[in-house]
Amino acid sequence: MVAIKEKERVDATGFGPILIIQDPEEFCYGVDAVILADFAAKRAKSIRSQSRIIDLGTGSGIIPLILSQKTESDHLFGVEIQENSWDRAYRSAALNELEDRLEFIKADVMDLSAERPEFKGSFDAVTCNPPYTSGGGGMKSENPAKMIARHETTASLEDFIRVSAELLKDRGELFMVHRPSRLVDIFVCSRKYRLEPKAIRMVVPRAGEEANIVLIHMVKNGGADLSVLPPLVIHEQNGGFTMELEEAYL
Amino acid sequence: MVAIKEKERVDATGFGPILIIQDPEEFCYGVDAVILADFAAKRAKSIRSQSRIIDLGTGSGIIPLILSQKTESDHLFGVEIQENSWDRAYRSAALNELEDRLEFIKADVMDLSAERPEFKGSFDAVTCNPPYTSGGGGMKSENPAKMIARHETTASLEDFIRVSAELLKDRGELFMVHRPSRLVDIFVCSRKYRLEPKAIRMVVPRAGEEANIVLIHMVKNGGADLSVLPPLVIHEQNGGFTMELEEAYL
Repeated sequence: MVAIKEKERVDATGFGPILIIQDPEEFCYGVDAVILADFAAKRAKSIRSQSRIIDLGTGSGIIPLILSQKTESDHLFGVEIQENSWDRAYRSAALNELEDRLEFIKADVMDLSAERPEFKGSFDAVTCNPPYTSGGGGMKSENPAKMIARHETTASLEDFIRVSAELLKDRGELFMVHRPSRLVDIFVCSRKYRLEPKAIRMVVPRAGEEANIVLIHMVKNGGADLSVLPPLVIHEQNGGFTMELEEAYL
Repeated sequence: MVAIKEKERVDATGFGPILIIQDPEEFCYGVDAVILADFAAKRAKSIRSQSRIIDLGTGSGIIPLILSQKTESDHLFGVEIQENSWDRAYRSAALNELEDRLEFIKADVMDLSAERPEFKGSFDAVTCNPPYTSGGGGMKSENPAKMIARHETTASLEDFIRVSAELLKDRGELFMVHRPSRLVDIFVCSRKYRLEPKAIRMVVPRAGEEANIVLIHMVKNGGADLSVLPPLVIHEQNGGFTMELEEAYL
């Protein structure tokens, strides 16, 4: 029996039978998490049952929950620093009876290697939907939960990349979603930690518009050779989702 | 009276009345040079008659020749290491009676600061269509002129970026065309020399395909904030040029 707290709600995700516990006043998952999970599931070389996948800054756990449906992996992990979000993720795993395949860890991603030394160099893939706004910028009037989810108040972009590099096996893959405005920072940082960007995919609200999201696929110790994939278009001109986006939600 | 040598031909470019002397056995300009010149002319903040613009690795001089039509600048320069290409560029300037606005310099870009110390920090804009293939790779059976134009046999990508940074004023702009596969190298290098990428534009053969060319706009000492512009599509599905490409050729 899984407890649902006041103000929380249980949402059907549409990914198979997966339900998720969310608190709309704190944070609900968005399209970024959905397209990142889809990108990772489609591009990762082969996600077998033995594959180990970890999501850094998992919030209420949406990405590992989606990956439980889109991959065969039964070694899925999510790390979240915020007590409330982690607790919801933990209960969502139980609610979906996924405790055998999915572990949510309450930790600061920066402390992960110290707390779980066996994690070092053990993962086939990392997913990461980090805060988009660097420490100094953005709206600071939000509630603390949204603040931490959206701003680099705790771990910075460099921290997420450095920790990902530590966690991955040789040739392990990092899948990240971020703002195109940060792409130079991301490339400079990832090269520093030998996580070579191999493919990027721009995400545009409508065909022909400027990109406002970018998906990045990096490989640990990979050779320098970037592919720029065709853009992912979110909306048709009439406002509805494109066919490709509809499919990412399945 | 401008001499035209055996095997050379004089082509009407379609950019106003501009003619260009080329040797089809050595190198003829392609779409990359045309879209780079157009990108620079449209994005450079303001190209007044006093603006100083230099093209590194200018070949037979197509980019400064186009910029003589698309900008007001009367301080246009082109640098070329190869005697034959430089000589054709030099004669094309004369053929078009542009000697007052346009100077072609025969030099290795790496020696430019030593040979012309007054150039340092003097330019508003640099354009650069460098060799796409790094020293080791690519087809080596071509003739030497094509080799040097296409491979990093003489100056490397890093050399072109370092020299551009030396030549530009504070806030001066570098416009470069390259392969998307080198984008990580370009970003890492440009950050190293404080040429901040401010905008990129992917170029795709047809809508929805992978990008095979990228246009990059960098600003010396600019702040970190990249825009990803909508892709430039070269061909319609039926094979003809798109309207935007047709306009770049005007």
